[in-house]
Amino acid sequence: MYMLCMCYVCNIVIFCTFIFIQIQGGVRSRPTSVDLYMRQLVIHEILQDAAQLFPKREIVSGDVRLTYADMYERVLRLANRLDQMGVKPGTVVGVLDVNTHRYLELHYALSMLGAILHTINFRLPPQDIIYTVQHAKDEWIWISEPFAKLHASIRPYVKHLVWLADETEVANGTLKEFYQEKDLIYETLIHDGQALLPETVETITEQSPYSIFYTTGTTGKPKGIRYRHRDMVLSPLQILHHLSLHPGGAHIDRRDTFMPLIPFFHIHAWGTAVFVPYLGAKLVLPGKSTPAEQLALIRKEEVSWSNMVPTQLSMLLDLLAPGETLSLKVLTGGSPLSKGLARRSAERGIQFSLIYGGSDQLGTGISVIPEHMALNDPDALEILATRTRPLPMVNIEMRSKEGHLVPWDGQTIGEIWVSSPWLPDGYLNQPDESAYFYRDGRFRSGDLGVRYPDGSIYVVDRERDAVKSGGEWIPTGVLESILSEHPGVKAAVVLARPDEKWGERPLAIIVPVSSDPRNPNDQQDLEKTLRAYLKALTEQGRLSSYWVPDTFVFLEELPTTSAGKIHKTALRQQLGLS
Amino acid sequence: MYMLCMCYVCNIVIFCTFIFIQIQGGVRSRPTSVDLYMRQLVIHEILQDAAQLFPKREIVSGDVRLTYADMYERVLRLANRLDQMGVKPGTVVGVLDVNTHRYLELHYALSMLGAILHTINFRLPPQDIIYTVQHAKDEWIWISEPFAKLHASIRPYVKHLVWLADETEVANGTLKEFYQEKDLIYETLIHDGQALLPETVETITEQSPYSIFYTTGTTGKPKGIRYRHRDMVLSPLQILHHLSLHPGGAHIDRRDTFMPLIPFFHIHAWGTAVFVPYLGAKLVLPGKSTPAEQLALIRKEEVSWSNMVPTQLSMLLDLLAPGETLSLKVLTGGSPLSKGLARRSAERGIQFSLIYGGSDQLGTGISVIPEHMALNDPDALEILATRTRPLPMVNIEMRSKEGHLVPWDGQTIGEIWVSSPWLPDGYLNQPDESAYFYRDGRFRSGDLGVRYPDGSIYVVDRERDAVKSGGEWIPTGVLESILSEHPGVKAAVVLARPDEKWGERPLAIIVPVSSDPRNPNDQQDLEKTLRAYLKALTEQGRLSSYWVPDTFVFLEELPTTSAGKIHKTALRQQLGLS
Repeated sequence: MYMLCMCYVCNIVIFCTFIFIQIQGGVRSRPTSVDLYMRQLVIHEILQDAAQLFPKREIVSGDVRLTYADMYERVLRLANRLDQMGVKPGTVVGVLDVNTHRYLELHYALSMLGAILHTINFRLPPQDIIYTVQHAKDEWIWISEPFAKLHASIRPYVKHLVWLADETEVANGTLKEFYQEKDLIYETLIHDGQALLPETVETITEQSPYSIFYTTGTTGKPKGIRYRHRDMVLSPLQILHHLSLHPGGAHIDRRDTFMPLIPFFHIHAWGTAVFVPYLGAKLVLPGKSTPAEQLALIRKEEVSWSNMVPTQLSMLLDLLAPGETLSLKVLTGGSPLSKGLARRSAERGIQFSLIYGGSDQLGTGISVIPEHMALNDPDALEILATRTRPLPMVNIEMRSKEGHLVPWDGQTIGEIWVSSPWLPDGYLNQPDESAYFYRDGRFRSGDLGVRYPDGSIYVVDRERDAVKSGGEWIPTGVLESILSEHPGVKAAVVLARPDEKWGERPLAIIVPVSSDPRNPNDQQDLEKTLRAYLKALTEQGRLSSYWVPDTFVFLEELPTTSAGKIHKTALRQQLGLS
Repeated sequence: MYMLCMCYVCNIVIFCTFIFIQIQGGVRSRPTSVDLYMRQLVIHEILQDAAQLFPKREIVSGDVRLTYADMYERVLRLANRLDQMGVKPGTVVGVLDVNTHRYLELHYALSMLGAILHTINFRLPPQDIIYTVQHAKDEWIWISEPFAKLHASIRPYVKHLVWLADETEVANGTLKEFYQEKDLIYETLIHDGQALLPETVETITEQSPYSIFYTTGTTGKPKGIRYRHRDMVLSPLQILHHLSLHPGGAHIDRRDTFMPLIPFFHIHAWGTAVFVPYLGAKLVLPGKSTPAEQLALIRKEEVSWSNMVPTQLSMLLDLLAPGETLSLKVLTGGSPLSKGLARRSAERGIQFSLIYGGSDQLGTGISVIPEHMALNDPDALEILATRTRPLPMVNIEMRSKEGHLVPWDGQTIGEIWVSSPWLPDGYLNQPDESAYFYRDGRFRSGDLGVRYPDGSIYVVDRERDAVKSGGEWIPTGVLESILSEHPGVKAAVVLARPDEKWGERPLAIIVPVSSDPRNPNDQQDLEKTLRAYLKALTEQGRLSSYWVPDTFVFLEELPTTSAGKIHKTALRQQLGLS
């Protein structure tokens, strides 16, 4: 509820606004500053609208249950306290946390102040985390319990350290050993603040910087990318709208309950920090949790929609009892979805869509069921697992090595160049890298794909992972997917091996399901089986004969990157390929 | 299909882009200018994307059938020709046409040039049309056959006159008598142009003005409103997204076929000129057509979605044979939907949603089925007919006469103040009017409504039409709706009659279904029946006793405005009330 006082002085109308937020039936009054700015595409207005239109919808975070109205009040208090403590437009605030309500609140409180949210990639090695804290010029660092041990190495570089906890947790709990007197406590800041919209809110425009993130980067130092408010409004909303406009596995309905398993640090949990409040839907935040705990939450809170990388999806499926199904819609991506995993998901009742994008380009495409296809068409599953269609307002060009635009024939491989209204303009303080990757108003993704006549894109592989054999690209992603379908294969990777005659030839690395990788006979048998399998597929026309790997290597497990993807660079080093 | 040439000079990369548009299987080549601008929220990119992603989807306009790819080619040719002829950023171009493919093409060709599309309200009296042509400073005027007779009175004020026709129509058809040698012909311009993206396209930003429209205005001269590109991207898309995210009668599916019956001049047919190509759906443009012809088109082209004012909906229903149904989703608005019309629509299979908004504020709210309600709930129909929920990103305040914010109790009447990212900043060259209606970053709508706890809004009436009796507002819209439900009533209007004691009292104007309005006995009988009917409803608690009109007046028909709404000002004059 709102009230508004009007004063007439010399025919000039002055409005003094007081906001009364309706909280679970009760009414508390707290005045806010004057609301004189034209509505912009700024992040905090998303929560403001949610608190107004969906005040009683829930946010569940561990043992905490909040409504959007509750959260908005906490956000106002936090912003007010931070305002008093000198957080200004441009102040950089680093956060080390899993997906909790406190992290979500910071998304909105910092927005009101024009401060820049540095979502720290906690999967980076500690020295890289410290590098990003220094490079982004973080003045504040906010740490939750799982990352408490990092406090000592980060302290020297920041002015303020805040524990994402309450006083009891700090005084008596696991944080006691880390706490220092000058440190601040999250819940105390909220307690001390007043639910007043800070005056700076009027100075924030949609062009203001909103957040900063550092890409993992398989080589060299992490690269920083800044997102503006409008980027983080438009891009997440287009993910939502795309999933709502087109039939597909992760189709969104306003009645869904959302649980992001993608961490907030990664493009704000692929935009869910923004689009779930925008939709006014119930949000479940899993905090630090094991796959088993996440599965229990899905059941308890009736979660119907989640996002996760294929590795997480595979782990979730592993937890299901034989024959058990799970009614869940999943948006997955980050690495290709193998046909084996796609089939397993479908068998267990999980519907999925594939998203293509990345920190440097944001959301770009999501798989949909094509117009000409019935929803239950048997081919729909494969298309949902492999072919993404550009989000509305995204324009994609597929260019050959020589710079020509390649035909939309579902065969010719090109590099993906992306243009959109939310494209970042480059890497922070890295003019050379920026100039290379951001050209002509487009981002050069380094990803290779083929484009189908309906405009959908099959990402065959990262450029650096692709195999160029005799002047022709071999799509290693396709090969990996085909190999993973074989019942004897748990995981498969295909890498380029230098070859005198052909330039490069494909090498397959196989993690078998059951054979003993140290037993050469087992390996030889599996290799023989796989070669016969690939030969049969070649005869069926599903792959070209020159795509068949020359060499097979068998491993017990594959190295992974900090983001949970297969670490191809490490694998290459392990096999002496680079 | 695209091709791109790359030239390396001193390590500087220069891109020369050539666009090859794939048209119905054939490939034609035409070079475009360099594509170096960052993607903005500009109108012409919507069609560009449609031509790329949905090249074969159809646009039907009279006997003409085009694909999006065809239309994009025609738009490029037209823009190129106009570029040569001196149409520049800021050039104002007036158009007098019904909903045709040519008018739609102008939407996109002028966008590429940064010219301003003046969508002339052809329902204005001729002297007002001429006033708007002069006030907007139209340099070009484009006229189609239905408006040919206006040519002579407009000619003196413009530099160029273009006939929306081909040479045959001008040489031998109905336009022959109007054509003068210096006039231009639409299809000749397209024929003479090359399908080249004009160079100016790079200078257009989302802040550039896109179109201008003059509101009807019941008093005084029409007021001009300018829309920026971003306004006409964001607002139509939010209408689409709202209709896709929430269940409701006019719910949108990408498989729908759209036929806008709202004229393009009125906010670009309530945004369909933009959001249908954005969705890549089939579009049917009815041109100049009678309701019977529109019904035939709906059946022939399998139209599943349309927009229209309640008067049009009523006329469509009148055409159906007894017991006949029509599977059509309708977005309606512009004036309240009476319960009688809502019921008739539902009985005939027509599903509808109500939109609230206007030229001065654009799309603001659309009715949805509330979260707690089943889709087939019997109350859903009434809610869809009466209560709109703000579009995402729209923020609405309901203020009392004294400026206080009124509670969301479904009872207290307040004035609607609207804020959104696409709000115009005022009326063209009318600083006083602008300052009155556009304040605090909000538009003061002059509409009265009540707000429900779920945030939805029931627009009870225009402020100037409302009745204030004894210090209390009487919602005349509610009264009109209730009266219209009575089987003896064809149409009902409630107006304020000055009253010494109460300030104002309601007066009901009734168009009876069957009684002879000149027969006093018939009138007395009906009045008696209606009074008993209202008394019963009062006893049921559906209306307050003081709402019951003191006076009943019976008329054969009601005067209507140029926009097809009931002309309350004229009615007031007719009855000696103003």
